[in-house]
Amino acid sequence: MTNEQSSRAAILSEALPHIRKYSKKTVVVKYGGAAMIDNEELKRAVISDIVLLSMSSVRMVVVHGGGPEISDLLKKIGKEPVFINGLRYTDDETMDVVQMVLAGKIGKDLAALAGEFGGKAVSLSGMDGGMMRARKLSDEYGLVGELQQIDPSLINVMLDEGYIPVISTVALGMEDAGPARFNINADTAASALAVALGAERLILLTDVRGILTDPKDEASLITEISVSDIPQLVKRGVITGGMIPKLECCVEAIRRGVSKAVILDGRLPHAILMEMLTDGGVGTMIKA
Amino acid sequence: MTNEQSSRAAILSEALPHIRKYSKKTVVVKYGGAAMIDNEELKRAVISDIVLLSMSSVRMVVVHGGGPEISDLLKKIGKEPVFINGLRYTDDETMDVVQMVLAGKIGKDLAALAGEFGGKAVSLSGMDGGMMRARKLSDEYGLVGELQQIDPSLINVMLDEGYIPVISTVALGMEDAGPARFNINADTAASALAVALGAERLILLTDVRGILTDPKDEASLITEISVSDIPQLVKRGVITGGMIPKLECCVEAIRRGVSKAVILDGRLPHAILMEMLTDGGVGTMIKA
Amino acid sequence: MTNEQSSRAAILSEALPHIRKYSKKTVVVKYGGAAMIDNEELKRAVISDIVLLSMSSVRMVVVHGGGPEISDLLKKIGKEPVFINGLRYTDDETMDVVQMVLAGKIGKDLAALAGEFGGKAVSLSGMDGGMMRARKLSDEYGLVGELQQIDPSLINVMLDEGYIPVISTVALGMEDAGPARFNINADTAASALAVALGAERLILLTDVRGILTDPKDEASLITEISVSDIPQLVKRGVITGGMIPKLECCVEAIRRGVSKAVILDGRLPHAILMEMLTDGGVGTMIKA
Amino acid sequence: MTNEQSSRAAILSEALPHIRKYSKKTVVVKYGGAAMIDNEELKRAVISDIVLLSMSSVRMVVVHGGGPEISDLLKKIGKEPVFINGLRYTDDETMDVVQMVLAGKIGKDLAALAGEFGGKAVSLSGMDGGMMRARKLSDEYGLVGELQQIDPSLINVMLDEGYIPVISTVALGMEDAGPARFNINADTAASALAVALGAERLILLTDVRGILTDPKDEASLITEISVSDIPQLVKRGVITGGMIPKLECCVEAIRRGVSKAVILDGRLPHAILMEMLTDGGVGTMIKA
Amino acid sequence: MTNEQSSRAAILSEALPHIRKYSKKTVVVKYGGAAMIDNEELKRAVISDIVLLSMSSVRMVVVHGGGPEISDLLKKIGKEPVFINGLRYTDDETMDVVQMVLAGKIGKDLAALAGEFGGKAVSLSGMDGGMMRARKLSDEYGLVGELQQIDPSLINVMLDEGYIPVISTVALGMEDAGPARFNINADTAASALAVALGAERLILLTDVRGILTDPKDEASLITEISVSDIPQLVKRGVITGGMIPKLECCVEAIRRGVSKAVILDGRLPHAILMEMLTDGGVGTMIKA
Amino acid sequence: MTNEQSSRAAILSEALPHIRKYSKKTVVVKYGGAAMIDNEELKRAVISDIVLLSMSSVRMVVVHGGGPEISDLLKKIGKEPVFINGLRYTDDETMDVVQMVLAGKIGKDLAALAGEFGGKAVSLSGMDGGMMRARKLSDEYGLVGELQQIDPSLINVMLDEGYIPVISTVALGMEDAGPARFNINADTAASALAVALGAERLILLTDVRGILTDPKDEASLITEISVSDIPQLVKRGVITGGMIPKLECCVEAIRRGVSKAVILDGRLPHAILMEMLTDGGVGTMIKA
Repeated sequence: MTNEQSSRAAILSEALPHIRKYSKKTVVVKYGGAAMIDNEELKRAVISDIVLLSMSSVRMVVVHGGGPEISDLLKKIGKEPVFINGLRYTDDETMDVVQMVLAGKIGKDLAALAGEFGGKAVSLSGMDGGMMRARKLSDEYGLVGELQQIDPSLINVMLDEGYIPVISTVALGMEDAGPARFNINADTAASALAVALGAERLILLTDVRGILTDPKDEASLITEISVSDIPQLVKRGVITGGMIPKLECCVEAIRRGVSKAVILDGRLPHAILMEMLTDGGVGTMIKA
Repeated sequence: MTNEQSSRAAILSEALPHIRKYSKKTVVVKYGGAAMIDNEELKRAVISDIVLLSMSSVRMVVVHGGGPEISDLLKKIGKEPVFINGLRYTDDETMDVVQMVLAGKIGKDLAALAGEFGGKAVSLSGMDGGMMRARKLSDEYGLVGELQQIDPSLINVMLDEGYIPVISTVALGMEDAGPARFNINADTAASALAVALGAERLILLTDVRGILTDPKDEASLITEISVSDIPQLVKRGVITGGMIPKLECCVEAIRRGVSKAVILDGRLPHAILMEMLTDGGVGTMIKA
Repeated sequence: MTNEQSSRAAILSEALPHIRKYSKKTVVVKYGGAAMIDNEELKRAVISDIVLLSMSSVRMVVVHGGGPEISDLLKKIGKEPVFINGLRYTDDETMDVVQMVLAGKIGKDLAALAGEFGGKAVSLSGMDGGMMRARKLSDEYGLVGELQQIDPSLINVMLDEGYIPVISTVALGMEDAGPARFNINADTAASALAVALGAERLILLTDVRGILTDPKDEASLITEISVSDIPQLVKRGVITGGMIPKLECCVEAIRRGVSKAVILDGRLPHAILMEMLTDGGVGTMIKA
Repeated sequence: MTNEQSSRAAILSEALPHIRKYSKKTVVVKYGGAAMIDNEELKRAVISDIVLLSMSSVRMVVVHGGGPEISDLLKKIGKEPVFINGLRYTDDETMDVVQMVLAGKIGKDLAALAGEFGGKAVSLSGMDGGMMRARKLSDEYGLVGELQQIDPSLINVMLDEGYIPVISTVALGMEDAGPARFNINADTAASALAVALGAERLILLTDVRGILTDPKDEASLITEISVSDIPQLVKRGVITGGMIPKLECCVEAIRRGVSKAVILDGRLPHAILMEMLTDGGVGTMIKA
Repeated sequence: MTNEQSSRAAILSEALPHIRKYSKKTVVVKYGGAAMIDNEELKRAVISDIVLLSMSSVRMVVVHGGGPEISDLLKKIGKEPVFINGLRYTDDETMDVVQMVLAGKIGKDLAALAGEFGGKAVSLSGMDGGMMRARKLSDEYGLVGELQQIDPSLINVMLDEGYIPVISTVALGMEDAGPARFNINADTAASALAVALGAERLILLTDVRGILTDPKDEASLITEISVSDIPQLVKRGVITGGMIPKLECCVEAIRRGVSKAVILDGRLPHAILMEMLTDGGVGTMIKA
Repeated sequence: MTNEQSSRAAILSEALPHIRKYSKKTVVVKYGGAAMIDNEELKRAVISDIVLLSMSSVRMVVVHGGGPEISDLLKKIGKEPVFINGLRYTDDETMDVVQMVLAGKIGKDLAALAGEFGGKAVSLSGMDGGMMRARKLSDEYGLVGELQQIDPSLINVMLDEGYIPVISTVALGMEDAGPARFNINADTAASALAVALGAERLILLTDVRGILTDPKDEASLITEISVSDIPQLVKRGVITGGMIPKLECCVEAIRRGVSKAVILDGRLPHAILMEMLTDGGVGTMIKA
């Protein structure tokens, strides 16, 4: 047996117990941001990983974003995107665009792409089957919503039947509050869905390497932190900027019962496989 | 017992065997065209009928159209709708718009509306779970597709779990033909779906009263015709114009095993309930 | 759409949620007294209503009486019926007659009649499968029994399989008390069965319009009363005579968990359908 | 081990494979005639055997007669029983009496008696659940019927749930022939039921020892005959009188798929246990 | 009916409720010692009883010993058996012999013998499926083990599928203690298995008549004792020698939930049938 | 991502579809010969591969040999092993040794070893549950048997419950031929079992590299041959000696429906994982 063969054997031996461990467990992957648009090759690797895991009995759920595409369509119809405190101001016309781009374009295209790899994916939104219900966050932002309830039964039906649900984060209003639609932040929705589904793991795909103690040195990656370490790391300036709300989503998920959350670099090809099927993983794992 | 009471009792006595007859049977309703947009009240009556029947164990499936809304968005982004032989010429940009309007806007809004009446509806497209596959009809029309395959399993899962599937008629390309999307005529898709689902009935909601021997007199409605009567009626000029392809969809469905098809006037409030739960019905029924 | 059509649509729209509400719920109908014998047409309407509801997934149970027919057969064999305090004095020979008339004649005939309307009904007695066990009420009345135990499993088996159980109210003695048979009051048995089956509703078909504040004016019907209102109504003389024990059966059922009880006029054709499938109902409803 | 003990051990060793052999198989016992009335002790032994076998997973079905009791009640109401060619002439009033005595009295009493031995028995008639349908045999006999159809589903439901069905042989008319009731011969009905239930065995309890070559010598009992031996035995005068129609019922059952039929002496205590659980049996077995 | 017949009927009547009582209950039989080797006829009677009961829906489990055969093979390979305090000193080579004789020879032969009687038996050991785990009892005895854990799932799978598990009492070491095998006393293992399986009864087949108040008189057999009577009987010298640890196994089983335990004379043919299917039984029953 | 990481990702991507492909499929591994005894490390690698695959939903069955250990014990008891035409002459005493070594020692030890890796394995023999039945091959060889029947139900029960069956190849005689035991060749038994289980693959672990065109050069390994190529290869002297009967087992399996058979080098660590989870495999595959 050549060296190459024996290293293959070692990798497979290492992977099998992980596959077993995740069998019939739920993993929620938030997929969005820069990585999602820029590179068709990367997008195919991400979706192929998700399909392979789904075929190996892992209950994979994808929650996607789509900010840039929304802004593109808004501009096309002659409407300038407006952001207040980092949130997209969402009037009724913007809401139509959000809904059409997320649920009509990005979600459907991801589902079609999964099909190319032999997966069965279904693009759904929080408006389907009464899945997500929200209240207005503040009049300041228009139809930006704050999630109040998640009914995971539709997603569970899909998972039980072997489908990969691909979720667009638009929500209905509360049941007693008349017709309404809201635009929901995808990281928050992914975290809340992971909780509602009793997920084993929440994976946030980002365009950074993870949490680095020295931002210039990828070798300084922190591979594992506890929820209780985070305040100190924020104080020391290791965790900053956009990473802070992402970690808040992770912490919230863990506090409400998700086993582990991972900040993972979506720019690494097959990062999801590497994270889930190797002993060390490749991102920063947050645990209780 | 007053007269009013005894007439109520008679209506209920008449309706119950019909409810029983449709129990666990599948009914495909094509909903689109003029009736769908012009009148919010009518739209609510249609959806409320569908929810009530779904709650009474009828497996209701909605297939919707949306031509006018597609043209609206095209115009908004500065693109003039083009029709060739009555078919919308569909380039790639138009296809994006078709997909976004049908699957992202109209389908989701219908699902949300069903929720207001206590139903559980899920908006899906032919791109989800590999449901619909098509080939290009002709280079002349761009991405207008001809349906080749329907996999009804996703819809059946939804029906088994008590959901009302609301179907947007965009399809994938053939499995071996690389990534592709096609714009599909909704009447044709409804007919093919009724066949694939082994439906008991196909209902095409239109904005005419049915087939009239005298187009000026609604009392001249033909309540029932056989497939074999149709050529003669076309020849006599009773069936003309846009009704011809609609009847072809009905005939095709019946030839391939659907029990009955109905041309129904979507402008009559609660036409679906009236058609399905009264002995005579209110539209034109086509049977083998 | 004609007026007649739109009123039909309204009636059906109103009925459907009721059908849904009763789906897989149990409804116990006590059927007996004058209405049962005098009028073949009415009897057919009652049984047809019960069959229609059973076909619509309502778990219908019929408990029947038969006093006049018992007296008829007694007279035929040369035995004068004897009543003490309104209860039939039941010696052994009378008990044979009670058993034969109820379980051998009336119950079987009702089951056969249900079959004519397409229903599947099974006539059973409290002596079958150990369903009802009783003790002697008092030596004064002979074999008149007081119900002690109900085992609803046989009835539930029948309901689960889609049969309509038709129950004759003769009971066995207690398990440890040797062989014995008892004659049981049908209203009481219906009430106890409704409790044992966890019924949604107990319907007592009578030959009066319901509870009237002015006995001469049917328009003075009280459509709904609470259990707590009853003592006052008895005191005021609104509830009198034979209605008092009937209401006691209703109150007992409600106190032990049945949702609602109804005093219904069996002389109105299709009173059961009207009561169950219209918003107002047509009898007097007693609730907690 | 004493002799008595070792003989017990031998009997048990012999019995167990028989119990196993009948496990979940159906055995139809026709019980009627002289043995049924004259001796309470014998009746208790018969029913106790049936209950014990039912508890040991044999699907026991009882079909009962009741001619003498019917004649008794007819006389009580002042009506002389009339027989033509050995068949009871059955006018409408007689039919009422037949129905009441069989379904209301004898069946219910047998079910109650089974309950005393810990069994769960349910008395049903051919009028329940559309079980038996018949046509008039001949105008000569009034409502004496000839069985046309048996729907065994109600009996199978009862057997599946562990109940012993006790069947009274009154039947409905044909489905398309309007309301009607018929008086059916119990031996014939038992034979037809055994066929419809795919029974392993049909047992006719009689008041003779079986088929004897010398009617004066019980030791001349024939323990086993083939269907093909019967014509010869009739010719030789070994089989005569009332035994001929009984054997015809047996032959008919065997020709239509029942494995074996037995003519058994109901006057022997525990004859059923002896027949079914010992290697030799105690009656005359008829086989193909 | 002859006397012989009526006594048969009585024995069968008596046996049936017992068969019913044990239906789907678990009975653990410890089979070993002198009775097992000396007499092929007796061995066949024991196994035939077990097969008959298994066929009658009793969940029969056999735990076997084999000391004499182990000593035979040891001698054959030139190794003298060594006993310390009555326990076999078990070095590694002896352990191989124990394992081979019990699991490879005696167990397999018993399973094959059951097959001759039409049973389906499977010979398993405590090493299969992690069924039994033990710790070293004391260095003094080598690999003699003390049972620590029983996982009954493998045995339950076999019973659910209708197999008779035949258990050889060799065990694994504890899960965290590296590879190890232990020789386990069969009486103790039978007692522990009865507990782990929630058995209805533990039967220890011995080569004595049971507990006798006068060891010379078999008629002095005690048929039933309570756990609380035992200390007094030991004190009085009624229970002595090898019977003491056997009774300890019984007491332990009863204290941990087994309903009853029986000391039974394996030299009586069909002792198991006699014990289980007759009212009095033939051994000494120990109860709480 | 380092090179090492990206090669890992590639290996995992490659492996997952294979795992999926074998999911719920049956693979029979014949394990025996030199590789099994000489090297504890290799034995652990083989069993660990089998456990990992079993945990990943592959239905793994092990058939083992044990010739050298049988000869060892024979010698220990002073009996010289005798071989005729390469087959072990098996008298009754030898048969005892075969049974004890295979079913009591090697099988149980392999099951225990699987337990150390977290697997659930059960050692069974062809004598359990009537699994294997054989006839004497020829008087010349004593109790050497030729397999006649395999009942796979016991193995399927074990697989359904997640156990790894480890099979010792001793068989019973035919059902009607009295008690008998036979010694069966393990390669033949593995082939027959693969057929009886409808296996996807038969793997024969050997101590050669596979089929080499140049026996001195491992690089001359033939990776895939058709059944039809074999006669030619034998003729050319590429396939010789002990490889010929092994290939006959493979051919027989394929002719009777097994998809593929593999000759695999048991001396390569993790050869089974490499064969099953990489695109090329590492042995010689025989296909139809």
